[in-house]
Amino acid sequence: MTTPEPAVLGVYETVLYARDVEATARFYAGPLGLRPLEASEKLGAVFRLDDGGVLLIFDPERASEPGRYVPEHGARGPGHIAFSVGAGALEAFAIEVEREISWGQGGRSLYVRDPAGNSVELIEGEAWPA
Amino acid sequence: MTTPEPAVLGVYETVLYARDVEATARFYAGPLGLRPLEASEKLGAVFRLDDGGVLLIFDPERASEPGRYVPEHGARGPGHIAFSVGAGALEAFAIEVEREISWGQGGRSLYVRDPAGNSVELIEGEAWPA
Repeated sequence: MTTPEPAVLGVYETVLYARDVEATARFYAGPLGLRPLEASEKLGAVFRLDDGGVLLIFDPERASEPGRYVPEHGARGPGHIAFSVGAGALEAFAIEVEREISWGQGGRSLYVRDPAGNSVELIEGEAWPA
Repeated sequence: MTTPEPAVLGVYETVLYARDVEATARFYAGPLGLRPLEASEKLGAVFRLDDGGVLLIFDPERASEPGRYVPEHGARGPGHIAFSVGAGALEAFAIEVEREISWGQGGRSLYVRDPAGNSVELIEGEAWPA
């Protein structure tokens, strides 16, 4: 009998934490243009991305309470996420830029902060080897 | 003159934090079967996923030091990530399962913990509306 190899296809859910979920969600729905889903619980905000991935914004206090339906988690302090953007789109975001970096792999990144202090990178092209 | 609409295509980099980066990286390379890239710096571990996304494991102490090439970040406490897995692959992971959940959207998830305490979900199918 053979069993299938474990096969991770990709990241389905990425989580960022924010004490003020609503203010942070407005940043992702507004300047970043992400599409919010109506969350089934008041715990956080949920966004569906064009490639099928999901971004979750959670309040770490509430997400870390034991006895939730899902296993508890909840991190404090600034996290980091990078979003792929389409060719030519990098200049179109109306957000204050903290840093700009051009990568040896040919990509270019703008770094901004969300209202919770998370470091948000917008990248056109690649920063890492294949 | 028209400017292109801001167009976020998807999540490029997802970050998890671990004080012991090496032990945590062994979990993602081993039982989870992710493909490590040789990181250009000793700051953390880098994995390339089959869909082109990148998973980063960072030590929050080092990632939050000011004066890095990239803007600093670094969260403490258990984070969360969900990986999409191929059909039939869910049973093939040799990892202790903390919880199993079947979703109304038809998906099914196993929850495990990485060595740093992050809540790692392996999902076949969907947990969220389209």
